[in-house]
Amino acid sequence: MTPPMVGIIGAGQLARMTAQAAISLAVDTKVLAVAPTDPACVAATVVEIGEPDDPAALQRFAAGCDVVTFDHERVDPTLLARIETAGVRVHPSASVLRFADKAHQRVELAAHGFPVPPFAVVTTATEVVEFAAAHGWPVVAKTAVGGYDGRGVFVLENQDQTVSTIGHLAGRRVVVEPMLDIAAEIAVVVARRPSGDTAVYPTVETIQHDGICIEATAPAAIDPDLRAHARGIAASIAETIGSVGILAVEFFITPAGVVVNELAPRPHNSGHWTIEGAVTSQFENHLRGILDWPLGDTSLTAPAVAMANILGGGPSAGPADLPAALSVAGARVHLYAKPSRPGRKLGHITATGPDQSVALARARTALAALTGTPMSKGILHDR
Amino acid sequence: MTPPMVGIIGAGQLARMTAQAAISLAVDTKVLAVAPTDPACVAATVVEIGEPDDPAALQRFAAGCDVVTFDHERVDPTLLARIETAGVRVHPSASVLRFADKAHQRVELAAHGFPVPPFAVVTTATEVVEFAAAHGWPVVAKTAVGGYDGRGVFVLENQDQTVSTIGHLAGRRVVVEPMLDIAAEIAVVVARRPSGDTAVYPTVETIQHDGICIEATAPAAIDPDLRAHARGIAASIAETIGSVGILAVEFFITPAGVVVNELAPRPHNSGHWTIEGAVTSQFENHLRGILDWPLGDTSLTAPAVAMANILGGGPSAGPADLPAALSVAGARVHLYAKPSRPGRKLGHITATGPDQSVALARARTALAALTGTPMSKGILHDR
Repeated sequence: MTPPMVGIIGAGQLARMTAQAAISLAVDTKVLAVAPTDPACVAATVVEIGEPDDPAALQRFAAGCDVVTFDHERVDPTLLARIETAGVRVHPSASVLRFADKAHQRVELAAHGFPVPPFAVVTTATEVVEFAAAHGWPVVAKTAVGGYDGRGVFVLENQDQTVSTIGHLAGRRVVVEPMLDIAAEIAVVVARRPSGDTAVYPTVETIQHDGICIEATAPAAIDPDLRAHARGIAASIAETIGSVGILAVEFFITPAGVVVNELAPRPHNSGHWTIEGAVTSQFENHLRGILDWPLGDTSLTAPAVAMANILGGGPSAGPADLPAALSVAGARVHLYAKPSRPGRKLGHITATGPDQSVALARARTALAALTGTPMSKGILHDR
Repeated sequence: MTPPMVGIIGAGQLARMTAQAAISLAVDTKVLAVAPTDPACVAATVVEIGEPDDPAALQRFAAGCDVVTFDHERVDPTLLARIETAGVRVHPSASVLRFADKAHQRVELAAHGFPVPPFAVVTTATEVVEFAAAHGWPVVAKTAVGGYDGRGVFVLENQDQTVSTIGHLAGRRVVVEPMLDIAAEIAVVVARRPSGDTAVYPTVETIQHDGICIEATAPAAIDPDLRAHARGIAASIAETIGSVGILAVEFFITPAGVVVNELAPRPHNSGHWTIEGAVTSQFENHLRGILDWPLGDTSLTAPAVAMANILGGGPSAGPADLPAALSVAGARVHLYAKPSRPGRKLGHITATGPDQSVALARARTALAALTGTPMSKGILHDR
């Protein structure tokens, strides 16, 4: 069999781990990297340097690929649609990539009857104030595009703060929602083939810190019925929007029930635990899905799995002590070979265990050893 | 931390899977490949083209490596020793690589009191006949160097056959041993650090066909005391010969007890199951060992694990049906991207299960699907 060539727009850690998984299946990968030092370049079969918003670079890149995918949402769906029109298979498709727009996804999910928080899509501070008048202060405003890891998300306490905080966004679409009473955050990763087959991973609980996911545990330590309910919603959303490859669905658990917070049409941080913790990883299932191959078993390999992110602590952060982390029994370390910046995801650690707390304790112990600090908040501190 | 650079002499499937494992630890790998299409080239950080028996190529290759290792035994220990003398760390060392010589390993193991079959190291057919006169026909003759996957191994029934079969080997050293009554073959993979720490994998049972390993199951379905005994011997051999990185020890179970058949100072086919079946794979533990980092947990991830090799059926072998194999629940496929040749190892399939027979049935089912044949002998048939 001639190995298929998978093109990945972007060469960050998601592309890195996807390319690493592709090696097992003898699938060739080509990444569109901004620089040859991007994390995925060492793992990909072929590296092309170019900007994801350069139409000519994208067209060149797509030529010779059996399927094109992406590892971030900073790709213009219109450019992706142009590649599709040129006859190249693109998964997730341009229409699915549109769901990376937080306004588009909220409007569409609500239109299809999926549970979402009360919200409005606005473009002015005045409209935010109107929303708050109806739902009460504080409110949360999120830019429709360009936000990630807590960026582009604002908690607004009153009218003055609203004007000073988001007044400068004039004309950009913002999703505004009430400050919800969130008991927990959970997420479900779904793999889907063009034929419609889906493989749904167990529901995980995610822990956020300053808007950044720092930890995830699987299965989520919540009512099993609630876990199953979330999986059902996630599978139904994948079906409804025609997702192919991996789709991650993030939920809030609120007193009013489970509501969808956000979608990500790509392998997702809340699924990194699947490399060791599931029979088939999200990265292999992304490849299987976009290549229209049978999806792999999503079952857990242990009673519980935990993942802790390794976050950059600052430009002066010292070298991580990898050997110290490796001395923690059962912890598996994944480094992305990225320069450190505050809050930047530099890697993650996975551990399994007889229950979530044991697995999480192992991952945290290894993280503390790696960062050389007794803290276990996932922050790589300066030292 | 500046990523360490690991040089691997050879770029076959063992280097491929080692380089793939290195990505997780942000360890850079440089392979010395004979051709840019060698299996490991897609996974390595840097590729250098050269012959492993070219002293100048080896010296150039070793420069800039933090440690040099190898993925096959067709490296001259004298050349390796020269790299060591030049101040480059080499693991396993030149003195350990000498144990790839079957005559050297037998003599040394016997001298240290490890259980080995009755044997003689000979260079003429006459000496083989003398050995047979003492131990009875048939006997098994193995060339001390250059044999693998059944090559260089001869079953000799009588004097005439001996002369016609090995007469042409004039002057080459041959290990001769009685045709043993072998109840089962087992193997133990040991990881070791320079400091002496070892991590010993569970004992596996291996199934051979025409001298080639076609299947392995872990743990070996034998008396647990016997499993533990084999692990103890393997760990003791690693200690005795000063192995660093992975050492594989193959045993025969005979009516007279467990005897050591053969050593391989590198990641080994009998350990491929560890990628999914052990907490830490033999490839990651090879890297940890040669980098003098803490060794990872060798525990099983499931009650039982089975591995089936994908072997080439001939130059006209048709394309393997990868999607069919992926449709078998729980089977994990690893392809090496090598052209097919009869008996050549093209990949392997791993499956876990509640016991060895269920795991093996899963692996065999996926293999039959891959090769498009109801047979499950691990042969990729022409079609």
